[in-house]
Amino acid sequence: MGSDTGEPSNDLLAHIAWSRITEPGDTVAHTLIRALGAVPAFDWLATTSATTPPGAPPDPRWEKTASNWRARLSGLDPRREYSVITGLGGAVLTARDPRWPAQLHDLGERAPLCLWVRGDVRALNRAGVGIVGARACTRYGERIAQELGSGASQAGLTVISGGAFGIDAAAHRAALANGSATIAFQAGGVDRFYPVAHTDLLGRVCESGAVVSEAPPGSAPMRQRFLMRNRLIAALSTAVVVVEASWRSGALSTARHAADLMRPVGAVPGPVTSMASAGCHRLLRDGMAVCVTDAGEMLELAGPLAPDPDPQTTQEGFLDGLDDEAARVLDAFPARSGTTTDALVHVAGLAPKTVVRALGTLQLAGRIKREGGQWKRRP
Amino acid sequence: MGSDTGEPSNDLLAHIAWSRITEPGDTVAHTLIRALGAVPAFDWLATTSATTPPGAPPDPRWEKTASNWRARLSGLDPRREYSVITGLGGAVLTARDPRWPAQLHDLGERAPLCLWVRGDVRALNRAGVGIVGARACTRYGERIAQELGSGASQAGLTVISGGAFGIDAAAHRAALANGSATIAFQAGGVDRFYPVAHTDLLGRVCESGAVVSEAPPGSAPMRQRFLMRNRLIAALSTAVVVVEASWRSGALSTARHAADLMRPVGAVPGPVTSMASAGCHRLLRDGMAVCVTDAGEMLELAGPLAPDPDPQTTQEGFLDGLDDEAARVLDAFPARSGTTTDALVHVAGLAPKTVVRALGTLQLAGRIKREGGQWKRRP
Repeated sequence: MGSDTGEPSNDLLAHIAWSRITEPGDTVAHTLIRALGAVPAFDWLATTSATTPPGAPPDPRWEKTASNWRARLSGLDPRREYSVITGLGGAVLTARDPRWPAQLHDLGERAPLCLWVRGDVRALNRAGVGIVGARACTRYGERIAQELGSGASQAGLTVISGGAFGIDAAAHRAALANGSATIAFQAGGVDRFYPVAHTDLLGRVCESGAVVSEAPPGSAPMRQRFLMRNRLIAALSTAVVVVEASWRSGALSTARHAADLMRPVGAVPGPVTSMASAGCHRLLRDGMAVCVTDAGEMLELAGPLAPDPDPQTTQEGFLDGLDDEAARVLDAFPARSGTTTDALVHVAGLAPKTVVRALGTLQLAGRIKREGGQWKRRP
Repeated sequence: MGSDTGEPSNDLLAHIAWSRITEPGDTVAHTLIRALGAVPAFDWLATTSATTPPGAPPDPRWEKTASNWRARLSGLDPRREYSVITGLGGAVLTARDPRWPAQLHDLGERAPLCLWVRGDVRALNRAGVGIVGARACTRYGERIAQELGSGASQAGLTVISGGAFGIDAAAHRAALANGSATIAFQAGGVDRFYPVAHTDLLGRVCESGAVVSEAPPGSAPMRQRFLMRNRLIAALSTAVVVVEASWRSGALSTARHAADLMRPVGAVPGPVTSMASAGCHRLLRDGMAVCVTDAGEMLELAGPLAPDPDPQTTQEGFLDGLDDEAARVLDAFPARSGTTTDALVHVAGLAPKTVVRALGTLQLAGRIKREGGQWKRRP
């Protein structure tokens, strides 16, 4: 789909080399490459021992930076790394590539030097929404992530996340279930999917979307790379929604990056007794995030790219004309996806007999329908 | 405690008469009484048939207003009504009374003409926080209302609410359980408690606090009076917190009144799947309320009157030094009140065996204690 097979340019090979010897978000390397070009900058580094790059003002800090970079020069083989990614059917992009997502320019000198992509490179150029959250999520969070992922997919938005356990996986899976594109940003190289238990999931992500990293193949998913990876999710997303996050969850860093980049941020509230929602409540209290309770509100946040939110979920009076029980049951329906009688009993907090009676009323009133063994709202 | 026994002044009797012939929030009557005095205004109404009050510019609307008021003149007996409230051990206040709560002046021409008070009139002059919410609350909401009510009481704040089923009752009960003052504002007369099922509860409220209404004894609790009653809860409160509220709950009107009066408003989030939290999320989305997740955050909202919030609940790192399981269990503890092993299993989402092990660790580490059959955090 997005595999490159031609001969790599010297500029691309130099970017690959820089991608290998730097850590994500190295603003010094970024600035240097923009000033000199990747090839001349690399030539200075690799073929001289000068501590100050040509044209740069002398500064004692150059020495340390240059020696850090030079420590990784041995064994460097950009041509081999290029063949690794193309061998995987993927591509490596730089900002000079027309397929480079323009949103990444918002990162300025913190933009990645390369993007290593497996799957469909074109997925990077479609509007997407970031749906992120806790690895250790609850069933509640998983359910909401699934609903938001479905809502984004049905609205034609790519679901962007981190491929992790918990919320990320639920969001990716919802997109896949809707036959929609989804993008997973990895902290390590895309040659080995992380976490290993998600090898199948990320393989399926590649089929309709892409698995992406700024770290070259072979890079381990280290802590700092996770945090830097979060800025890429934020930058590529039209809006970011945090579904569940503990008080110090990494998902909060994605939210902060999004806020820094002027992307709208949403947070899904949950029980105040749930540790898994504490981070979301923190974002709401800090005024960093808007309260998002369903897919319609997420799409509203994502702006005009998204269609109007489902009028059912926002229109006042949509419960009018129903008795209390029927209204309570209808209100317990998810905005878009299907649900079961058992789930409605749980959400509405009514006796099974009462729910069954209310479902009859609602069906007769044409407010709900039966579809594939599930109950769904009618438009 | 606050019973008045002396001879009522003519001004008080005239206010009582006005209280009887007007509906709560009658700004025309309020303005007229401020301009002429309650006695001359009442003399004009009762002893002449002039449609325009003395000194007022002619206006066709006077006729309708005056005839509405005059329709209730027959059978009026302010002296009897005064004896009803004093017979109940209560008092009736006007803005001229030194015991009139100064905060009510913020209501301007929408201030009540009288306050009919049973219990301890002094409760009206202590700093209090409004804790309101849905009648049809969930067990989750009830639990949070109880925690907030306890937190307010322990901080020396009066708990102000509406005496209704659900959240209101849980908040009042928490104050009573802490031996603290609480105030219930009624929509109808204070001679008959409403709802009837709360006769005992409201009787207990009178013992340490007060049951208050602007409607004279004998007034029925009508819908419009409920809505107007909400402005009194808002006006008397330093801050108002909505614990649970459906999308069109009356508690939202209390929040709106509070916001209009520049009182800080808090809303407690809940599961987005819970109809009972939809109104709270609406307040958060509209930016009308701050997200409040525990008593500490409520006290923060109530401002400098309240002591510093419990450092345990806000200090970052209070889970430091604990293994994941112990941290998760400690985090599942309520901020101030006690809890049980079963509740912790539910909130932490861990197996009973794991919770028991973690409780052992936490007890050895001196982070929790056993007290009266419950687990509590140690300061």
